[in-house]
Amino acid sequence: MNAEQLLKNFRVVLVEPLYGGNIGSTCRAMMNAGMTDLAIVSPRPDTDWDDARRLAYRATDVLDNIKKFDTLREALADCSMAAGTSARKGFYRNQSFVPHDFAPVALESARENKIALVFGREDKGLTNEELGLCTHIIEIPSSEIYRSLNLSHAVMVVVYEIFCAAGSFEAAEEGSPEASIEMRERMFDLYSEMMLRTGFVKPDKLDHMMMGLRRILSRGQLTDCDVRIMLGLARQALWVTERWEACGSPKK
Amino acid sequence: MNAEQLLKNFRVVLVEPLYGGNIGSTCRAMMNAGMTDLAIVSPRPDTDWDDARRLAYRATDVLDNIKKFDTLREALADCSMAAGTSARKGFYRNQSFVPHDFAPVALESARENKIALVFGREDKGLTNEELGLCTHIIEIPSSEIYRSLNLSHAVMVVVYEIFCAAGSFEAAEEGSPEASIEMRERMFDLYSEMMLRTGFVKPDKLDHMMMGLRRILSRGQLTDCDVRIMLGLARQALWVTERWEACGSPKK
Repeated sequence: MNAEQLLKNFRVVLVEPLYGGNIGSTCRAMMNAGMTDLAIVSPRPDTDWDDARRLAYRATDVLDNIKKFDTLREALADCSMAAGTSARKGFYRNQSFVPHDFAPVALESARENKIALVFGREDKGLTNEELGLCTHIIEIPSSEIYRSLNLSHAVMVVVYEIFCAAGSFEAAEEGSPEASIEMRERMFDLYSEMMLRTGFVKPDKLDHMMMGLRRILSRGQLTDCDVRIMLGLARQALWVTERWEACGSPKK
Repeated sequence: MNAEQLLKNFRVVLVEPLYGGNIGSTCRAMMNAGMTDLAIVSPRPDTDWDDARRLAYRATDVLDNIKKFDTLREALADCSMAAGTSARKGFYRNQSFVPHDFAPVALESARENKIALVFGREDKGLTNEELGLCTHIIEIPSSEIYRSLNLSHAVMVVVYEIFCAAGSFEAAEEGSPEASIEMRERMFDLYSEMMLRTGFVKPDKLDHMMMGLRRILSRGQLTDCDVRIMLGLARQALWVTERWEACGSPKK
């Protein structure tokens, strides 16, 4: 697969962008990097599409083929890797990639899979829940004094690094295909159920614990085969729990 | 001289920009890279300064301290190095740097001197004469199919590369220390027990399945905190299994 084809496997996902101009500028940044697949999650009804078209300049093809989704989960369903960008530090954001280091990892995976690059709202970025759906976190280097990037600048930096890395990139084959986001989410759903049913966590602590599990299982790529093992483990624990419940689940 | 001081020795020079919005976005890109010295050559009388201010967002300090010059030559007078950006190939443009390679060269020189980063008009770029005033040419990698970058995107890429090379940025450190081998092995022992006791695998398949789990949990570093979560999960599944066994563990 050549660089041109690899780059076609990247999808830029904008979550609830505020300004049409940024959507247009994003189209242009993508075309500069040889990417064409743009998705918008929950587009605002008052989006200024004229402004988008004006700033897309001669990259309006990308704008015309935009995909719209109600939820981030749907936008990521057919992707195996999703990188969320975040400027804030905090829980779950400890381990992050700079774009330069993320690029070769993503290109390796792009040989076989679709990769999503996820960008949040201009004012608030991505929520913790949205970042939780991502397999990787990208932190764009910027001055401590002025951390916040313009949305289309953030897109530009990330796709530029990937474009540059694609130029000289060759990678090894992976054995088992990478798991889709959909399959990963089914796994996490089952683990939520398991954590609750086995009594490992109380409902109010579930989110916190699930963030931990997501972090653990997002350190590297996760194959179909890996997810099947993790699913099997949780299913069996749930099976035991059902039997235990059936005999009255007496508390200790 | 530290990174912060080095970056203060860079001046971004925009030659006859068409759109106020791009001037504002440039201010922001500069602040992201710790730069504050912005010059405009031959500003248009009809420049939309309101748009500039809107897009500068919280980087209006840069806008307020903008320097205006009649000619490029004056804007470069106190600089020892000037890098002009160009997308076109042709006369005088054969020898050019990509931003990544230009960054260390410029930073070396910035220890003693002012460095200008020169960007042309949105529609026509820099003239041959203007490029002739520059000591270096920067060519920003972009797709053959769509070479033309938005002006503020071009600024962003160049100042971002210089900022990264200046080394003032370090990605967030992992909070929790890495788990010891001892702790990891206790975790794997507990999972072996859980796999058998819950009936997930028969003893003769245990090694194979444990290899899978080891692979999954060895993709990246595993912290103390991560291992405690994984241990907790397995312990709880085993706790349930014990209760189930205690009530006779009736087979399905």
